[in-house]
Amino acid sequence: MITITIIGSGNVAYHLAKAISISDELELVQLAMRDIEKAPTFIEKAKIETDFGKLKEVDLYLVAVADNAIEGVIEKIATPTRLIAHTSGTSELLLSAARYRKGVFYPLQTFSKTKDISFAEVPICIETFDKEDLKILKKCAEAISNNVYEISSQQRKVLHVAAVFVNNFVNHLYVQGEKICDENGINFEILKPLIKETAAKIEILHAKDAQTGPAKRGDTTTINQHLNFLKDENQKEIYKIITQSIINNDKKL
Amino acid sequence: MITITIIGSGNVAYHLAKAISISDELELVQLAMRDIEKAPTFIEKAKIETDFGKLKEVDLYLVAVADNAIEGVIEKIATPTRLIAHTSGTSELLLSAARYRKGVFYPLQTFSKTKDISFAEVPICIETFDKEDLKILKKCAEAISNNVYEISSQQRKVLHVAAVFVNNFVNHLYVQGEKICDENGINFEILKPLIKETAAKIEILHAKDAQTGPAKRGDTTTINQHLNFLKDENQKEIYKIITQSIINNDKKL
Repeated sequence: MITITIIGSGNVAYHLAKAISISDELELVQLAMRDIEKAPTFIEKAKIETDFGKLKEVDLYLVAVADNAIEGVIEKIATPTRLIAHTSGTSELLLSAARYRKGVFYPLQTFSKTKDISFAEVPICIETFDKEDLKILKKCAEAISNNVYEISSQQRKVLHVAAVFVNNFVNHLYVQGEKICDENGINFEILKPLIKETAAKIEILHAKDAQTGPAKRGDTTTINQHLNFLKDENQKEIYKIITQSIINNDKKL
Repeated sequence: MITITIIGSGNVAYHLAKAISISDELELVQLAMRDIEKAPTFIEKAKIETDFGKLKEVDLYLVAVADNAIEGVIEKIATPTRLIAHTSGTSELLLSAARYRKGVFYPLQTFSKTKDISFAEVPICIETFDKEDLKILKKCAEAISNNVYEISSQQRKVLHVAAVFVNNFVNHLYVQGEKICDENGINFEILKPLIKETAAKIEILHAKDAQTGPAKRGDTTTINQHLNFLKDENQKEIYKIITQSIINNDKKL
């Protein structure tokens, strides 16, 4: 049984706490956060700790706080014997001058408290300096997920950039699609099966083989009609840049 | 029983033919295409017709060919008594001067022959000039799908623009994500659960409430690191434009 304490009250801390709580191989000893009001109801109150100086000794501390707060939290809880891993996609393994056993435990997924998630499918990227520490992180990650990867800080940064494209930017295109529908009195629901299928295709096709549409066909008549139709400057710019990028991509092949 | 003939050999014709073949309420009488080599194996050879002048009389002709070929096909098969619907997202209902009963039967989905699809979930947008013709299109659409919508040509164009954003452009962002991974020796598989979840979230959250990431947080340190990392000009431009659009969107709220 690996004993774990989580520090944080955001979406990542919430879903990690949930996944660890229900694992037979892991024990969530404490969940630490500054504001007790944010404590999830599925954790017993006795396990919630607001004083970071009073954390019990456990096998692993997971720091799931905002990037700019990680260093401060680590400096409060660091001791030379504690294994402390942060959950950030962008922060370095070597983040603080404080002495502690350093680790990264990055679940590469988009989390919202209002949406349940199957943690078994969440890829977890782990990294440490020490082989024995790596074993602990690995055991912990494998107890809650079937997709565990050893990833260096450099690779993790690349993954984070790619994740911005396929998650943050994709979601913004959904935002624009919904806006276009709303402004023209069309129910966005009609597009949801298309959104679902677009993502599902990637499971069996390379994205470049799944590409369709006016830009791919070089259909300038339709492209110009669409640009004429769009009045919002952001939408127009996005339309132009991505259309051009699709055309350029094909030229390179 | 509604009798139907499909004209076309592309992805839409293929999946329509499949869905109609297995329906108890519809009968696929013929599948017409110029090149017999492209005939799908699941249709009996006797039903394949390459001479568009020899089509049998049926209740409905579905013209599932490229946008710029629709008019030519319709002019070959039009008679004043035939109900002929095209399957295009962009073409007008009133497309040709030829005399025939005009219709649109637009399945709003991304189709590939190599990927099976549950047609029951495919939204079908229908339009006619005549009420009786609308009934036929509706019956046919409802026999293969649970999502049938009456949509005007004007609304269909709006839907098509929105579809370009949430399908074509989203897929291009997958292409870029895969490229970033490939060029840095990272397995794109790691990002697939994220892609799946990003789309799944839209089923229960408004896209604007699901937005996360450095642009949303106004995290200029990370944004600048990412821009420094990206060397490909297309990727850099896309990153800049969408980041700016996310920031502008929040200003407007």
